[in-house]
Amino acid sequence: MIGIGIIGLGTVGIGAYKILREHRSLIYQRTGVDLDVVKIADVDIERDRGIPLEKGLLTQNALEVINDDRVDIVVELMGGVHTAFDYIAQALKKKKWVVTANKALLAERGDEIFRLVEEEGCEIGFEASVCGGIPVIRAIRDGLVGNRIDYILGILNGTCNYILTRMTEEGISFDAILKDAQRLGFAESDPTLDIEGIDAAHKLCILIRLAFHYPLQMKDIVTEGISKIESIDIEFAKEFGYTIKLLGVGKEENGLIDARVVPAMIPVRHPMSTVNGVFNAVYVVGDKVGPTLYYGRGAGSDPTGSAVVSDIVDMACRLIAKSPRTALSLHKGNRRMRTDEESSFPYYMRFTVEDRPGVLSRISGILAEYRISISSVIQKGREEVGHVPLVIVTHEAIEKDLKRAKEEISKLPFVKGESVHIRIEEGSS
Amino acid sequence: MIGIGIIGLGTVGIGAYKILREHRSLIYQRTGVDLDVVKIADVDIERDRGIPLEKGLLTQNALEVINDDRVDIVVELMGGVHTAFDYIAQALKKKKWVVTANKALLAERGDEIFRLVEEEGCEIGFEASVCGGIPVIRAIRDGLVGNRIDYILGILNGTCNYILTRMTEEGISFDAILKDAQRLGFAESDPTLDIEGIDAAHKLCILIRLAFHYPLQMKDIVTEGISKIESIDIEFAKEFGYTIKLLGVGKEENGLIDARVVPAMIPVRHPMSTVNGVFNAVYVVGDKVGPTLYYGRGAGSDPTGSAVVSDIVDMACRLIAKSPRTALSLHKGNRRMRTDEESSFPYYMRFTVEDRPGVLSRISGILAEYRISISSVIQKGREEVGHVPLVIVTHEAIEKDLKRAKEEISKLPFVKGESVHIRIEEGSS
Repeated sequence: MIGIGIIGLGTVGIGAYKILREHRSLIYQRTGVDLDVVKIADVDIERDRGIPLEKGLLTQNALEVINDDRVDIVVELMGGVHTAFDYIAQALKKKKWVVTANKALLAERGDEIFRLVEEEGCEIGFEASVCGGIPVIRAIRDGLVGNRIDYILGILNGTCNYILTRMTEEGISFDAILKDAQRLGFAESDPTLDIEGIDAAHKLCILIRLAFHYPLQMKDIVTEGISKIESIDIEFAKEFGYTIKLLGVGKEENGLIDARVVPAMIPVRHPMSTVNGVFNAVYVVGDKVGPTLYYGRGAGSDPTGSAVVSDIVDMACRLIAKSPRTALSLHKGNRRMRTDEESSFPYYMRFTVEDRPGVLSRISGILAEYRISISSVIQKGREEVGHVPLVIVTHEAIEKDLKRAKEEISKLPFVKGESVHIRIEEGSS
Repeated sequence: MIGIGIIGLGTVGIGAYKILREHRSLIYQRTGVDLDVVKIADVDIERDRGIPLEKGLLTQNALEVINDDRVDIVVELMGGVHTAFDYIAQALKKKKWVVTANKALLAERGDEIFRLVEEEGCEIGFEASVCGGIPVIRAIRDGLVGNRIDYILGILNGTCNYILTRMTEEGISFDAILKDAQRLGFAESDPTLDIEGIDAAHKLCILIRLAFHYPLQMKDIVTEGISKIESIDIEFAKEFGYTIKLLGVGKEENGLIDARVVPAMIPVRHPMSTVNGVFNAVYVVGDKVGPTLYYGRGAGSDPTGSAVVSDIVDMACRLIAKSPRTALSLHKGNRRMRTDEESSFPYYMRFTVEDRPGVLSRISGILAEYRISISSVIQKGREEVGHVPLVIVTHEAIEKDLKRAKEEISKLPFVKGESVHIRIEEGSS
């Protein structure tokens, strides 16, 4: 029997606890592992969570979980960074193995945690920290263990994907759908972490460390949110055969690492373009296996609970044998982050211009000065207000050049309002 | 150090061997496991395979692999059923752990093998037997271990998917594309196993045993191939919002098990409908995690080799600890296969009829007699030959009734040629 202690009985904690109760015998039949939840800590031990909780199971003191001799595995589901770190560190020092769903913690202080795990000869499971129920951590770590990973593309945030999907399908504005999403519970009342790409960046940080063994820091990740995406750009994207998604991209090529979370256009034929609504997906390219994709619910009590339980079961056999996995080792080697000057992509640009002769010539002239070559142009028919959108898709261009050209063009007298540029991600390594 | 012995140095054997050589230090860094290929058996030890093979590594005698004391894991990649079974049995009796990519063997004689694995206290890995490089076995077994699996939908055969994709995109006939696929190496010179659905049924058999722990036999699987699919039906499918795929379907509901490999229509909005070309995918619904999907290359030297290597690495730690996984246990319990009379689906039907009044009324009358209700009808405009296609989509109907109605309708004087029926799979559990 393996004793489980849980710290944090919120959405994910309840999901995990319910599965451990409900499917205890199923898991035992399948794996020979008997899992028993012996202690749960939460600040709120009064609230009715709609599940039976034996007397004595709950405590307000997390240390009672960590110090309970019956607890073999400590499951940290409280969230937050520093207090959670302290609890995990204390559990590891008591040679308890740890499971966590805490992406912010791993992204911010993962280096320290992995070092501690190794020092203490323990193990940490974090399947639930990336994309909820999708078993993508074990796919990369175990399933593709024989591959050098070259490229990762992730739709890592359900709130953003829900908003962009509805914008694409219904043509409604970002603000309107965000309000609706908040009403329906698909977005937080303060949605900043989600819509500004920070939550996705936390997950990308974990995926890149796992796949490339590179000691990536949050500050290394170029992070942009989706709040500036307009319906008109989604419409133009369709005309060019693209869908706009918030993409987490990780790439290693010739010793240079790319890490960015940005709204980007991806070809409609790419398998990631059909990942809609609150669903998440990760597209992983290995040198041997080629492209693979993992899709499912990225959040929610039961799906994330399912990932927590998978880690607990995975550990049990090695825990009994006191033979932990080799801890995740991170090393820079000769590698470094790719700089802005070294990054080039095709871009979509949109300007609002007066509809008169000479405009396109002037704009394309400025682009040429910055060595940006044009792949295609759409100028929509005359509008009543006298201004029309001018849309340009470029060949690969260096972002810095593109931004400078955009700035210069925006200052032209016949250009009105805010100009837009969106990266195009072709989606292959 | 873990000693590896390989039986069969064909396409997959070469892929696995290359990965084990090329990524030996990468795997060691990641996992602490050092894998050394010490013996390889193949009937042909002369052929130049374009890879360096040390003197003494190759033998024509598989027993030299099995009996070599340095060999801890025997990797069976020779294919075929009975000789492969004998070698695996001998390896297990010598307490060697086994990895195989042999889907036919596992589908035909899996029961015996799993029993033997348990008796000998060994372990068998078979990730490579289903969908090549896609880590779907470990996704179901490990990633979704906390779930009761309710529903599996698989695009399990790359040859069929390649042919159907090209039929869908180019409107060319099955025969023409099959010939082209053979020329390009995407289809065997004798394509029967692939196009008649037998290869897909082997894989579905393995997936269902793994997911439902039901002792499914090949004869339990309703198996139909794609050779009768016509371009006109693919076109009509599009009009109704469906794509035709060869789908392996496994379902457990109220103690009844469904297992079928059939060409079926799936909604274009379903994530499985965009799995194109030689790619494979498996859609798995768990009671906790909800729907998940795994996508990638289902065949080929490197992708399948990648899966073989993932099994070897996965085993290594437990092999050293002499602590194997619990063997896959199969039990019927109170469950049984769903019969034809209990199976109902929506269906697509196509008749070739004279274009004159009263035809639809007569046909819909016969359908009504068999309690088949109509969801929608398309009758295409008058053609020169005087016969037009009449297409009917039904609500859920029992297959036996539908076949009888189809037979009766086909005998009507104004109905010409062969009538067609294709299942519609809505793709949710």
